[in-house]
Amino acid sequence: MKSIGFIGLGLMGKPMAKNLLKAGFNLTVHSRSRGPVDELAALGARAAHSPREVAAAAEVVITIVPDSPDVEAVATGLEGILAGAKPGLIHIDMSTISPVATRRIAEIEKQAGVTLLDAPVSGGTVGAEAGTLSIMVGGDEAAFQACQEIFAAMGKRITYLGPSGAGQTTKACNQIMTAGIYAVMSEALVLAAKSGLDPAKVVEVLAGGAARCWALEVRAPKILKRELEPGFKAAMQYKDLNIVAETARAEGVPTPLTAVVRELYATLLVDGKGDLDSSSIVTVLEKLAGVEVRAKD
Amino acid sequence: MKSIGFIGLGLMGKPMAKNLLKAGFNLTVHSRSRGPVDELAALGARAAHSPREVAAAAEVVITIVPDSPDVEAVATGLEGILAGAKPGLIHIDMSTISPVATRRIAEIEKQAGVTLLDAPVSGGTVGAEAGTLSIMVGGDEAAFQACQEIFAAMGKRITYLGPSGAGQTTKACNQIMTAGIYAVMSEALVLAAKSGLDPAKVVEVLAGGAARCWALEVRAPKILKRELEPGFKAAMQYKDLNIVAETARAEGVPTPLTAVVRELYATLLVDGKGDLDSSSIVTVLEKLAGVEVRAKD
Amino acid sequence: MKSIGFIGLGLMGKPMAKNLLKAGFNLTVHSRSRGPVDELAALGARAAHSPREVAAAAEVVITIVPDSPDVEAVATGLEGILAGAKPGLIHIDMSTISPVATRRIAEIEKQAGVTLLDAPVSGGTVGAEAGTLSIMVGGDEAAFQACQEIFAAMGKRITYLGPSGAGQTTKACNQIMTAGIYAVMSEALVLAAKSGLDPAKVVEVLAGGAARCWALEVRAPKILKRELEPGFKAAMQYKDLNIVAETARAEGVPTPLTAVVRELYATLLVDGKGDLDSSSIVTVLEKLAGVEVRAKD
Amino acid sequence: MKSIGFIGLGLMGKPMAKNLLKAGFNLTVHSRSRGPVDELAALGARAAHSPREVAAAAEVVITIVPDSPDVEAVATGLEGILAGAKPGLIHIDMSTISPVATRRIAEIEKQAGVTLLDAPVSGGTVGAEAGTLSIMVGGDEAAFQACQEIFAAMGKRITYLGPSGAGQTTKACNQIMTAGIYAVMSEALVLAAKSGLDPAKVVEVLAGGAARCWALEVRAPKILKRELEPGFKAAMQYKDLNIVAETARAEGVPTPLTAVVRELYATLLVDGKGDLDSSSIVTVLEKLAGVEVRAKD
Repeated sequence: MKSIGFIGLGLMGKPMAKNLLKAGFNLTVHSRSRGPVDELAALGARAAHSPREVAAAAEVVITIVPDSPDVEAVATGLEGILAGAKPGLIHIDMSTISPVATRRIAEIEKQAGVTLLDAPVSGGTVGAEAGTLSIMVGGDEAAFQACQEIFAAMGKRITYLGPSGAGQTTKACNQIMTAGIYAVMSEALVLAAKSGLDPAKVVEVLAGGAARCWALEVRAPKILKRELEPGFKAAMQYKDLNIVAETARAEGVPTPLTAVVRELYATLLVDGKGDLDSSSIVTVLEKLAGVEVRAKD
Repeated sequence: MKSIGFIGLGLMGKPMAKNLLKAGFNLTVHSRSRGPVDELAALGARAAHSPREVAAAAEVVITIVPDSPDVEAVATGLEGILAGAKPGLIHIDMSTISPVATRRIAEIEKQAGVTLLDAPVSGGTVGAEAGTLSIMVGGDEAAFQACQEIFAAMGKRITYLGPSGAGQTTKACNQIMTAGIYAVMSEALVLAAKSGLDPAKVVEVLAGGAARCWALEVRAPKILKRELEPGFKAAMQYKDLNIVAETARAEGVPTPLTAVVRELYATLLVDGKGDLDSSSIVTVLEKLAGVEVRAKD
Repeated sequence: MKSIGFIGLGLMGKPMAKNLLKAGFNLTVHSRSRGPVDELAALGARAAHSPREVAAAAEVVITIVPDSPDVEAVATGLEGILAGAKPGLIHIDMSTISPVATRRIAEIEKQAGVTLLDAPVSGGTVGAEAGTLSIMVGGDEAAFQACQEIFAAMGKRITYLGPSGAGQTTKACNQIMTAGIYAVMSEALVLAAKSGLDPAKVVEVLAGGAARCWALEVRAPKILKRELEPGFKAAMQYKDLNIVAETARAEGVPTPLTAVVRELYATLLVDGKGDLDSSSIVTVLEKLAGVEVRAKD
Repeated sequence: MKSIGFIGLGLMGKPMAKNLLKAGFNLTVHSRSRGPVDELAALGARAAHSPREVAAAAEVVITIVPDSPDVEAVATGLEGILAGAKPGLIHIDMSTISPVATRRIAEIEKQAGVTLLDAPVSGGTVGAEAGTLSIMVGGDEAAFQACQEIFAAMGKRITYLGPSGAGQTTKACNQIMTAGIYAVMSEALVLAAKSGLDPAKVVEVLAGGAARCWALEVRAPKILKRELEPGFKAAMQYKDLNIVAETARAEGVPTPLTAVVRELYATLLVDGKGDLDSSSIVTVLEKLAGVEVRAKD
């Protein structure tokens, strides 16, 4: 059983690391804040003071941090993974970052004999805790095969999608759809509400036909009750839409709709709602139309 | 059992009329082209030469024709429904038209003692044939109750949504979502394809998470095989998006995304693809990006 | 010198009619409100009780009313122009309406021997009073030639653009640009303001280069002083953008930007600002960004 | 008279450097390609092998290179400006880059006693050669004052706009407007052409009213003759629109229109037209509508 390093014990990372412990892996952990490190240590993980130290102790290092610059710092910083890595190390980055950045980091790590897999996830904290995440993997296929057991401890749908960046690009495609669907659903719900319809009935009717989607089934009922706590934070969705923009630019793909969706999320953040659920984009459309989407009594 | 009139035996109307016959209703039919009238007559319907004649013979008249001016002509023309209607007639318009036009026609018919229900459907020709349409009803609730058996012969989910226009407005909300989801899905698939990913794998991964929707499940696999025959024609979707625009304007609801979606459908029609399925909007995004979304071998 | 009928003595129509009187034309006038009719009568015009009566007394009838349905009512209503017209009458419609409606009305009038010229104007009330309007004319060229003197009494740049609807289509093109320029200027000014720059300096710099435009020169300085009275009302601009949408649809021209501009104007009207100047679209962008564009002291 | 270093002898930089020589400045130059360096040397400049060498010889170093990473490399690279700079050096960066990057570089240079002014220009190669550029300056005001003579040798409108980044932000505002105006003008011209109007007449009419702008006056006539050579390259405009996106994100300013404009430019680059003039965005709209904007004979 491989010895694993784990860097980034946030809302997602902590339960993922716990699942690795449960699966019997030997774990060395590091995170910016002390609390979750102690929590994992109490469960049997070894605490390390830096990514360098984590890398020195592991055959596989997992990172899950906020954005591209964080991954770059953790990988290539003075006290970073490369500073401690032995040739042959596999680095699985499970953050959602730009595939362009992923490929740049992979290139640098390759010089040091380290193999980078990009493996962003979807499924939220619920999926992280239950070990049912979807994991989208890009990079060297042999390295992917070698890490199957590790992925299986954290997720359920584990898909190999191609060379370095392929996992991140797939995640970008996913975010185009999840954000876009929320936005078009919001326009529909706001039209329903301002027209005097009962949005709850409209949701029910629409969910029964070609408009059927996860957002209508899971999130629309919460919107009607004004339950907008995350789930997945709007600020992260906005960050991801900027990754989409960078990716689309790099690949030469015009995305006129996603461009507008991103500006709506920018408006949501200006409104100070970045910590609400991504579905709270509905409040931007509500503000434009001067109406609130609520179930009628 | 009520005697029913049926006007408009097109791709949707013909199978709907047949289901009414099967359910034992006494049917008088009229349509612009002779063929389907004869077909229904052979099954036991009475053929009429005009909407006026249909109305004269019926307690309930159903119309399902292409657009608002068609409904207006059928209702208020020289040989129209009002010319033949006895007071107390119920007119069920199952066309998809503007709720603004619906309310205008309802007002006129009311003067003549005719009650208009708006009852647009979703579910396509498949649902029309199987008698499993979703029917969204607006107008007088007592009239709706009086027509329950009739609706039950044609559809499965039958929902009363409120006063005149409420059915059409709900359909407009539905079209915002179906068109919008196709468009954002297209941006995702085109990004996947141009990035060198296998779109089939991406569809599979996305359909397993928060991007899950009818479009990914039912239409994306057809797109990957370039099966773009309708289903629901792009030209009708574009017509419906113009109804959305008129409705949103009347209600005072800004719809920045749907506005862009509509322009993409306008482009599709310029490209001569109005007779393809509504999901063929993907070809507009493909043209912008210079790539085709196909499953890899 | 021809005897002229004039229908519609609003903010634009009244000064235009006065200029015709000054030029020595024999004028019969009609308008919905009594005040301006009396005012013109005091200056020597003959007052009529209906468009029919106006038409009966004139060789040329000018109309300038709010929208397509108004022109249709004035032309084809029971007491309309056609009810009083002698064959050979020229009808000059100077309203801004849809070229699609224009061609429909022209077709009807032709049956009655009446020739319709579409001749929308730009230049605002200032231009109407000074007799310096730009006039964009479509329709029969001989009729246009026959009316040169009449146009010359009201405007300065008088351009014949082609067959029926050509004047209205040109006006639609004009409105695409005036509204679009206001909207992009607003994005620039809001970015400047929120970045802490002095918008007045930015306006000055931008007006000196390739961004130079009437909007920056004439309207931006007023915005900086929060002078948002019309000029040209935002509600009329929104009406015109809906004419653009109808025209673009009829001609098969996708307009992705103007579609978004229209939704921003829809938002402005929701905010209750339809009576402000069209340039007040800046307030919508200000609201999105949470900042106000003002000159620094 | 100060001794000046000049790095980046491209289409803009070379004529700017020549104007500095003409004005009597002592010039040390460096560029990636040898040709222009020799050309300047023949006119009396001293050739240097690296930014470091340029900085060592100068009191003021001017840079004008393509994008943020280029400025960063020239400033902070191993053979960069900071490697050769004496404390007190003023670095004038006349490239168009992100104000975010500008402030980051300014911070780094400050540590080394170097003062960065951001001073992007507009006016194109024509303005560069004639010494009539508009120069938008941000950074320390005393440094700006100290460089007045230098700016005067290259430009005509020289405006100090505020602290570090203010020049770049102003340039970003300018690019929002220039690109946006081209795009809305394109929609207007395409509608005119597809409607069968003579676009040349429409341009003339529109340029006489509230749509008047530099683009209509200078570029539209060239479009009508299909003269699409730059001027200012579309690929640079696209780069600048990405700077706008980064700036707007940093400042919290939603820009729904500019977002769509950028996607249209992305389409133009996919079409392989990045080396045409920025006004060739009209070809994207032409492709969407299936028509070409040309003057009628």
